[in-house]
Amino acid sequence: MRESWAPRDRMVYSAAQLVRARGVASTGVRDVVEHADAPRGSFQHYFPGGKDQVVAEALGWAGGYAADWATRYLEMAREPTPAGLFAHLVGQWRREFTRRGFDRGCPIMAAGAQTAAGDGVIADASRAAFERWHLAVAEALSGMGVGRARGRALATLMLSTLEGAIMMARLERSQRPLRVVLKELSPVLDSLGRVHPAATLPT
Amino acid sequence: MRESWAPRDRMVYSAAQLVRARGVASTGVRDVVEHADAPRGSFQHYFPGGKDQVVAEALGWAGGYAADWATRYLEMAREPTPAGLFAHLVGQWRREFTRRGFDRGCPIMAAGAQTAAGDGVIADASRAAFERWHLAVAEALSGMGVGRARGRALATLMLSTLEGAIMMARLERSQRPLRVVLKELSPVLDSLGRVHPAATLPT
Repeated sequence: MRESWAPRDRMVYSAAQLVRARGVASTGVRDVVEHADAPRGSFQHYFPGGKDQVVAEALGWAGGYAADWATRYLEMAREPTPAGLFAHLVGQWRREFTRRGFDRGCPIMAAGAQTAAGDGVIADASRAAFERWHLAVAEALSGMGVGRARGRALATLMLSTLEGAIMMARLERSQRPLRVVLKELSPVLDSLGRVHPAATLPT
Repeated sequence: MRESWAPRDRMVYSAAQLVRARGVASTGVRDVVEHADAPRGSFQHYFPGGKDQVVAEALGWAGGYAADWATRYLEMAREPTPAGLFAHLVGQWRREFTRRGFDRGCPIMAAGAQTAAGDGVIADASRAAFERWHLAVAEALSGMGVGRARGRALATLMLSTLEGAIMMARLERSQRPLRVVLKELSPVLDSLGRVHPAATLPT
């Protein structure tokens, strides 16, 4: 977290980090204020909707961050492929676990595991965050020439596998599951995506 | 739940169902006793370790249930294949969602999302439950002629993808993610597993 961020942004970021580590129910408003090193009493001013509001905004921030990371792949890759995109998504988590250990998982999964099918503010925010991420992955696939329906299916396969592997990696406290799904799924993704890189090079 | 079960077993089962729906932090001892329709005051007698004990036992029960279901595939299938095993695992969740809606997810994921990398009783129980399930899937693959290392890798791929798709299905309140991962992964699993059914038929 950048210390130069405004207190409101720091609290949203802190809520995301706490939810990733311990889930929604165990994340209290006081924890968020302390983690963010924000002035006491400012919370209510910024988040009149209380804990639900800050957690929902944290999920929105996380969904945007994940979507941006997926979108960046097309800018970074010379010869974009579905497997390359999957490696890009998995690679971010491998770096996260290498740098910071296994304490923090995916905030959308942490919130979703508790209230996935519900109707509340947090369930809605989890759903919207995941949809935004999923759409960004599907659009990145479209951008490399994969058909729309196929791109949506591959996005579902990639994100399902990644989410499950993140959880397995944390349980095992090992990068093994991420390595395995990357290795096993990569050849498959390119074959399922039926991408012909020569046809998608910028003209 | 069978009403004929002893109160102790009913409480373990109830703890699993509550954790699946709302996570560990939001599952209280009183909720477990009420859900199990167990005599008040019996909880402390059966579970001197309190909530951690009943949740850990619930996760153990869930891991055994999931492992048994994977093992049963080899008894049920005429020509077992990796894709057939995956369909068997996914099919159980499709039936669950059809029958009971999307309120209840995987208890191991629900517990793992909160404390996956931790050291506590519940994190250890999540880890053990997942390992048991993973081992049963790997052994089922061995039983149909897939090599050990390959079987372990495919088990990781299958369970990662299934866990993520369960969460996506609940968020979407739709079977779509389960249908998609089954369709996309099935041809791949058989090709990765390199199984020759004729060679593994019982003699």
